[in-house]
Amino acid sequence: MNAMKIGIAGLGTVGGGVVKGLQTHGARLDTRAGMPLELIAVCDRDADRLAAFAVPAKFDDVTGLVASKADLIVELIGGENGAAPKLVEAALKAGKHVVTANKAMMARHGARLAAIAEQNGRALKFEAAVAGGIPIVKALRESLMTHGVKVVRGILNGTCNYILTQMEATGRGFDEVLKDAQNLGYAEADPELDVGGGDTAHKLALLTALAFAVAPNLDAVAVEGIRHINPDDIAFAREFGYRIKLLGIARRTDIGIIQRVQPAMVREGTPLADVDGVLNGVVVNAGEAGPFFFEGRGAGESPTAGAVIADILDIARGNCGSVFGVPAASLSALSPAPAGSASSAFYLRFQVLDVPGVLAEIAGLLAKWRVSIESMIQRGRAPGEAVSIVMITHETTYAAVESALQTIAGSANVVAPPVMIPMEAK
Amino acid sequence: MNAMKIGIAGLGTVGGGVVKGLQTHGARLDTRAGMPLELIAVCDRDADRLAAFAVPAKFDDVTGLVASKADLIVELIGGENGAAPKLVEAALKAGKHVVTANKAMMARHGARLAAIAEQNGRALKFEAAVAGGIPIVKALRESLMTHGVKVVRGILNGTCNYILTQMEATGRGFDEVLKDAQNLGYAEADPELDVGGGDTAHKLALLTALAFAVAPNLDAVAVEGIRHINPDDIAFAREFGYRIKLLGIARRTDIGIIQRVQPAMVREGTPLADVDGVLNGVVVNAGEAGPFFFEGRGAGESPTAGAVIADILDIARGNCGSVFGVPAASLSALSPAPAGSASSAFYLRFQVLDVPGVLAEIAGLLAKWRVSIESMIQRGRAPGEAVSIVMITHETTYAAVESALQTIAGSANVVAPPVMIPMEAK
Repeated sequence: MNAMKIGIAGLGTVGGGVVKGLQTHGARLDTRAGMPLELIAVCDRDADRLAAFAVPAKFDDVTGLVASKADLIVELIGGENGAAPKLVEAALKAGKHVVTANKAMMARHGARLAAIAEQNGRALKFEAAVAGGIPIVKALRESLMTHGVKVVRGILNGTCNYILTQMEATGRGFDEVLKDAQNLGYAEADPELDVGGGDTAHKLALLTALAFAVAPNLDAVAVEGIRHINPDDIAFAREFGYRIKLLGIARRTDIGIIQRVQPAMVREGTPLADVDGVLNGVVVNAGEAGPFFFEGRGAGESPTAGAVIADILDIARGNCGSVFGVPAASLSALSPAPAGSASSAFYLRFQVLDVPGVLAEIAGLLAKWRVSIESMIQRGRAPGEAVSIVMITHETTYAAVESALQTIAGSANVVAPPVMIPMEAK
Repeated sequence: MNAMKIGIAGLGTVGGGVVKGLQTHGARLDTRAGMPLELIAVCDRDADRLAAFAVPAKFDDVTGLVASKADLIVELIGGENGAAPKLVEAALKAGKHVVTANKAMMARHGARLAAIAEQNGRALKFEAAVAGGIPIVKALRESLMTHGVKVVRGILNGTCNYILTQMEATGRGFDEVLKDAQNLGYAEADPELDVGGGDTAHKLALLTALAFAVAPNLDAVAVEGIRHINPDDIAFAREFGYRIKLLGIARRTDIGIIQRVQPAMVREGTPLADVDGVLNGVVVNAGEAGPFFFEGRGAGESPTAGAVIADILDIARGNCGSVFGVPAASLSALSPAPAGSASSAFYLRFQVLDVPGVLAEIAGLLAKWRVSIESMIQRGRAPGEAVSIVMITHETTYAAVESALQTIAGSANVVAPPVMIPMEAK
């Protein structure tokens, strides 16, 4: 019987987890693969990491891996450009299958790499790139597409979800909670890719591609992070029966595809509202078949290594279909909906001077842009204090609300930039 | 390019949905399949059903289908024995792939049919047999198995879940709510397969096989339905912070595999507690990778037809691996844990005469079987009325509780059979 010879590039947390997984569960995995899985080579620039594992061949450079007898290369180097895409391209052209956890690379170069894979008759799999152990890539590629997906909404970044969950639980501010998260290892020393929304955008671009059979288009994702969310907004959200979550949202509409990463109000009692801490969760509205919800650990050694190994097994069993579920040549260019055309209800918060007529002024400016109010709370009447006016609007467009807020921000009675957070009730 | 020629046996709700799905979404599905999907024949004993669809060849008997040029047969006749398994066996032996939604057949004959499929180099897929549109069969077969699954727990029957949800919402009794469910089409005229737990047992036997690489063993499932659940139990559950759900539970232990279908107390705030109405939900504890949760519509035309079509696409793309995730010849015989050896905490309810010493008597008999009490509620002190004594025990074995209850039921002070419901908190 043929063996599947495997080479791994990058021995960080996930790479180490893959080596351990293959070595610990070898016999059981071989049975599932239908052939022996043989780890023949690893590569890492760090000599200590290389020394930590017992593997026949070790390289400090990817060249050795590409030249090796490996049938399948696992790319865990990371990074949008540089060594990772070079390795993947070289491996595919050398007739090797590739499994990767690299969301940045796939979001940027996914369509091109998919075409190379398919031209060379090789698989390129990336389950571990989105939502860790949750098999959402496979579900969108192979299970939920029958009736046509309408919307995908996900909590795709455990760091942000941990921070928002902690802010809600403790009432503390973003900076303080971020520091705790860094101390606990839930946030990086440089947290920008997570808290700025960029990591969620990478993952969203891949889910969009799978859901709608389009080439991943990272540039068409509107991205907003969570730095500006404050404990007042979280407390007001609770009063209205909502929780604030950083969502990636991809929606097919008549005027194009909307891709947004942004903090959103999620109604209590709906599945995404209960995704707490570092967990990830994804809702797929699969047309007539209805919504499906998936939840689990979206990062960490075992869930992510598990997803990588599942991809390896898939390839060993001959499940080597199109990278994004349709042939790369059939991926359409993503046609983005015009900026601002998406519609939603919104949570708005204004910090204003407590002077007569201020509410009338704000209400008048909103009305001018045809933004109508569903409910309102006013707070903070200690003398001399600024007053918080909080509103939930009826459904309207981003463009209308943004225009109204721009005008309102110019008022002498408004003492801080207005806050707008869309309501994702459905 | 080759086409995939398809024949469908059984044109009920799901069969009709598959025909409609293939016809409505044809071009899009062909792109995903990598080849044209051609519906060439259908068969049904009912002439009216046959007349309702435009398909080249129509048969009133499966023989014509087996003799047809179809590459793939969709079996939607249903039934554990009789026409369905005969058709599947004949089709596989004639070199055709098979997709089925038949949980009873797969739970009873799955291992044998898998062996026939694999001997003939053909696929046998059954995503639609469990949890409708939720891709749990694929997830267990291809995604979550890396680190070894420990436990699968699911709400797998929408009828039971609808009835329990309604009983809780309205405070009404089982019989009344069942009648409503029947009028609404959520329950069959003969509801026994659903409310007696048999349908859940079929599905559980399949999930167990996938999770633990064993041959499905329906006889090793301990089955209890929901007829005996009354509104008092539901109300007490709420007081303790739990909800009552009919669960299928498969657990690997040191002394064998436990398979149980039974009403269980599910703690509020955990995912399964929030699966309401006709929805299905499944939690898979995937060892080191942690728990994963899946929720969605578990029955109905579109979700189930969607799952059937996803299986067809899988086969067209060449994803034709082992039926249960490991070669049929490698499926172990399921070694069931000894009856009663499973351990759990329990909810217990006793209807007793309000006489001095009755609590001491019950507590004494529980203690004799080393069943210790964590918390207790006593109710119903109108003169002459029977009193409800409700307890939550610490963790103990089914055998201990069953023995204790048998003795307690014999007491002259106990006026109704004691109720025991396990707590599924984790």
